Amino acid sequence: MASQTLASHVANHADSQDKLYKQVALRISELIEHGTLRPGDRLPSVRQLSEQESVSLSTVTQAYRRLEDQGLIEARPQSGYYVRARIWSAPPEPGLSHPGRSATRVSVNELVMEVLRHTHDPSLLAFGAASPGPELLPTDQLMRTMASVGRRHSREWNGCSIPPGNLYLRTQIARRALESGCLLAPEEIVITCGCQEAVNLCLRAVAKPGDTIAIESPTYYGILQIIESLGMKVCEIPTFPREGVCLDELASRLDRCRIKACVFVPNFSNPLGSCMPDEKKERLVNLLAERQIPLIEDDLYGTLSHAPRRPKTAKAFDKQGLVLLCDSFSKTLAPGMRIGWTAPGRFKDKVEHLKFIASIGTATLPQMAIAEFLASGGYDHHLRKLRRIYAEQMQLATQAITRYFPEGTKVTRPTGSYVLWVELPPFIDSLDLFHRALAEKISLAPGHIFSPTQNYQNCIRLSCGHLWSEAMEKGLWRLGKIMGQMERESRGRARVESRPAAS
Amino acid sequence: MASQTLASHVANHADSQDKLYKQVALRISELIEHGTLRPGDRLPSVRQLSEQESVSLSTVTQAYRRLEDQGLIEARPQSGYYVRARIWSAPPEPGLSHPGRSATRVSVNELVMEVLRHTHDPSLLAFGAASPGPELLPTDQLMRTMASVGRRHSREWNGCSIPPGNLYLRTQIARRALESGCLLAPEEIVITCGCQEAVNLCLRAVAKPGDTIAIESPTYYGILQIIESLGMKVCEIPTFPREGVCLDELASRLDRCRIKACVFVPNFSNPLGSCMPDEKKERLVNLLAERQIPLIEDDLYGTLSHAPRRPKTAKAFDKQGLVLLCDSFSKTLAPGMRIGWTAPGRFKDKVEHLKFIASIGTATLPQMAIAEFLASGGYDHHLRKLRRIYAEQMQLATQAITRYFPEGTKVTRPTGSYVLWVELPPFIDSLDLFHRALAEKISLAPGHIFSPTQNYQNCIRLSCGHLWSEAMEKGLWRLGKIMGQMERESRGRARVESRPAAS
Repeated sequence: MASQTLASHVANHADSQDKLYKQVALRISELIEHGTLRPGDRLPSVRQLSEQESVSLSTVTQAYRRLEDQGLIEARPQSGYYVRARIWSAPPEPGLSHPGRSATRVSVNELVMEVLRHTHDPSLLAFGAASPGPELLPTDQLMRTMASVGRRHSREWNGCSIPPGNLYLRTQIARRALESGCLLAPEEIVITCGCQEAVNLCLRAVAKPGDTIAIESPTYYGILQIIESLGMKVCEIPTFPREGVCLDELASRLDRCRIKACVFVPNFSNPLGSCMPDEKKERLVNLLAERQIPLIEDDLYGTLSHAPRRPKTAKAFDKQGLVLLCDSFSKTLAPGMRIGWTAPGRFKDKVEHLKFIASIGTATLPQMAIAEFLASGGYDHHLRKLRRIYAEQMQLATQAITRYFPEGTKVTRPTGSYVLWVELPPFIDSLDLFHRALAEKISLAPGHIFSPTQNYQNCIRLSCGHLWSEAMEKGLWRLGKIMGQMERESRGRARVESRPAAS
Repeated sequence: MASQTLASHVANHADSQDKLYKQVALRISELIEHGTLRPGDRLPSVRQLSEQESVSLSTVTQAYRRLEDQGLIEARPQSGYYVRARIWSAPPEPGLSHPGRSATRVSVNELVMEVLRHTHDPSLLAFGAASPGPELLPTDQLMRTMASVGRRHSREWNGCSIPPGNLYLRTQIARRALESGCLLAPEEIVITCGCQEAVNLCLRAVAKPGDTIAIESPTYYGILQIIESLGMKVCEIPTFPREGVCLDELASRLDRCRIKACVFVPNFSNPLGSCMPDEKKERLVNLLAERQIPLIEDDLYGTLSHAPRRPKTAKAFDKQGLVLLCDSFSKTLAPGMRIGWTAPGRFKDKVEHLKFIASIGTATLPQMAIAEFLASGGYDHHLRKLRRIYAEQMQLATQAITRYFPEGTKVTRPTGSYVLWVELPPFIDSLDLFHRALAEKISLAPGHIFSPTQNYQNCIRLSCGHLWSEAMEKGLWRLGKIMGQMERESRGRARVESRPAAS
C-alpha cells in the first residue's frame, strides 16, 4: 500500500467517480488515525495533492471540506489545512429501547445457531463473538499453573469434583466477591460449566415451563435461548443504554404481568454495555424483594470495568437471598476452561442438586488451576492490563465507526467490557449486512438475535475483544463500504418504487 | 491382630456368647481366604483349637460344622478337618425384577443427594460411588499429554470449543466406535460435559415435560433424577440381571402406554450389570423402530467388558437414526475431566443446539488431551489392564460377600464393569444399613435410589471400582456384622410383637 499513490489506491476501491472525494477523505483520515499525520501537522495544499495523486482540484477541495465537516482538519486563513488537535467526536448514543409490552414465546434459536457457526470461525475478522482475543490471555501462565497443580495433586485432579465444587476455588471466589460489595461464604457458591450453565440452573430453580421471565431489551441471545429451551416466556423491559433497565417500566410490568423472575445483566450488559448505577441496583433489589421475585444477575462482564474500581453487583444489596449471582472466568481469563459459578442465595440447595443432575460435576483440574492463579495474584495483574487495553480499543473502534459508518449511525459508550451496540440507519437490515460481511470474511452479530420480537433489525453488536489491529480498522472501513452500497441499493429501490406504474 | 489369640479377637467382636461359634468360623474362613490356610491343609483338631484359643469344645465343633456347611472345609474319617479344594460357591443370582405397571412421577432427588454427599467422601471405604479408583488411572500420563498439547497448541487450548466440539476427538471416537459395531462419522458426534449431560440433552431433544420414559428396573439414579428434573414420568420395565430388559414386557407396555422414549443401559447396566446379548439388542432396536420410538443408549460401561472383546452397542443395529448413543471417559480414564459424547442420530442438530444452550461448550484442553491419548494407543493398553483387574476383583468381592453376608443373600454375576447388585434378606432395610455403615466409615448405595417406587429396599449396590485391598475385605466383613446385628434386632422385635398384649 505504501508504494501505491493515493489515486491508484482510491481508484481500486471507489465504486463510482462521484464518490472519489469521499475515498480521498477516508484515506487522509486513516493517515491521521494511524498517526502518520499528527495534530497540528499541515496538510499538502490542494494543488500539491491534486498533482501528486492525479485527481482533480475539485475532488481534493471536496475531500478537505468533508474532513473539515467531520472535525478532523481545520482551515487556517492564508496558511492552508491543518490536522485538528481534538480529532474525534463520536456519533450520538441510541435512546431507551421500546420493546412490546406483552409476554412473548421465544424463537431465536435457529438464527442464533447460524450466526454462531460463523462468529467462531477463526478465519474471519472477529467482531462477531463476544470473546477475549487469545493474544490477550495469560494462557502460558495458566498452563504452567495447571502443570504445577497436576504434579502436586496428582490423584485429586483426576477425581470427580461433585457439587458444590472445589473448595479452594470457592474460597478464592468468595474473597474476590468483596470487591463487588458481596459478603459471600464459600458454602454459598456452586461451581458450574461456565456462566451459561449457571444461568440455566438458576432459572430452572426459580421458574417452570410456561412462566414469564423479565429480561432487558435488547438482551444476550444466550439468555433468550435458555428461556426458549425451557418453554418459558419473556417480558422485555425497556432499557437505557447507559443505566440499564427502566425501573418505572419494570415496576409497571410487575404490577400487570405475572413475572416469575428476572434475568438481568446490571454491569456492562450484553449487547448494550449499560451499567446500572449502584444506587439504582439497590432500588431494583428492593423493588423485587417487596414482591418476592428472584433476580438472576449475570455479572459476566462486571470485572471488565474500564475504571480502576469495578461496580458493585446487585447481589451486594440482597438481604433476602433472592438474588442469584452468576459469573465465570470465560470472558477474562480462560474461555477454554468453561469454569463458572453461582451464588444462588436461598435457592442454593436446589441449584446444587440441579447441577449434579445436569452434568454431575465441573472439570476438576481447571477449577484447581484457576483457584491457584487467583490466589497467586496473577488474576489481578492480568485484569488491570485487560481493562486498560479494552478502554483504549473501544475508543479506537468508536473512532473508526465514526469515520466509516453512514450518517445517522448511533453507538453506545460503555464504561466497561468490549462490545459496542450500533444502531444503523433504517435502510440497513443487519441480517443482510451480516451475510454481505461474511462474504468479505468479517463476522458481526446482527440485532435480530438480541430480541424475540425482532426489534433490532437495523442494529449490530460489534465485539472488540481481540487486540486492535490494522486489519480490524480495515474491517470497519469495509463494513462502511458495504453499507454505502446498501444505501445506494435502497435509494435505487426507492426510485423504482416511486415511478408511476405502467398502465 | 496377629499377636491376639483367636478367642480375644472373637471376644472383642462377638455380640453374645451363643454366636461365638459363628465368629470362630468367620475367623477361620478369613485365614482360608487370605491363604494362611490353603486347600488340602489340615485344620487343628477340635481339642487343640479349644485349648489354644480358650473356647469350649462344643464351640469349636459348631464352628467346624458351620464351615463344613459352607463348603469351606471337609471332615475326612479318622483324620480330621481339611480345607476343601473348591473353596467358593457364590450365592444365587437375583431374579427378574417386578416393578409396578403404571407411569410414575419420580422423586428420588433428596435421598440421592444425601447418599451422594457420603459416597464421594474420600475418608470412607468406597463401595458407594461407581467410580474407578484413582490408583487405577493413567493420571500422570494424561497430565504429560495435557502439558504437551498445551505447549504445541497454546492458543487453541484456551479458546472456546463450541458444539459439536473438538474435531480430532470426534475423529478418535468415531474410529473407536467401530469396535462396538458402529459406523459413525465425526460429524455425527457431539462432545458433552460427561455422559450425564449427554443423556440430559438427548432426553430433552426427544421428549417434553409430562411425557413417559421407559427405563430398566432397577436403574441408575442419575437417569431417574434427569427424568424428574425435566418433569417427565417413568415406566419401569422388568429387567433380567443377566440379559437386561424383558422385551416381551417392553412390547406389552409400549402397546398399552404412551411411551415417548426409552433410556436403557444395554451393556453392563448400573446397578444390575446386565448385558443384553447382541441379537437381543437387534430385536430391541427393531421393536422400537417399528413404533418410531427413540432409544437413548447409555454405554458408559460398554468398554469395561471382562472378556477381551467388548459387546456391540444397540446403536450398531440402528438403521433409522433413532438410537441416541451416549458415552464418556469418566468411568475408564478421567473422571475429573468430564468429557462425554453422544451420537444422537437424526436428533443431532437439536442436541447440538441444546448443548450450546446448556453450557456453550466443553472444556477444550481435556478434549484435546483425551484425543491425543486415544490416538497414541495409550487408552487401549490401559483398558486391557483395567478389564483384567476388574474381572479379578469382582470375584474377590463376590467371595467376600459369600462368606460374610447373611444367609438368603443373592448377588449378580456381571461380565463387565465393577458394580454388584446385592439382594439381602427381607429383614434388612438398606437405608438403615447405609446409615449404620456410614458410622463405621463404609459407603454403599441403598436400593431405594434405583427406583422411583422404592422397590429395592432390601438391595444394595456395591461398587468395586477401587483396587481391591484388605481394608475392603474387612469392610465387607463389617457389613456382614452389621447385618447380623440387624437380624438379631429384627428377631427381638418379632418376639416382642408376638407376645400377648397386657390386658
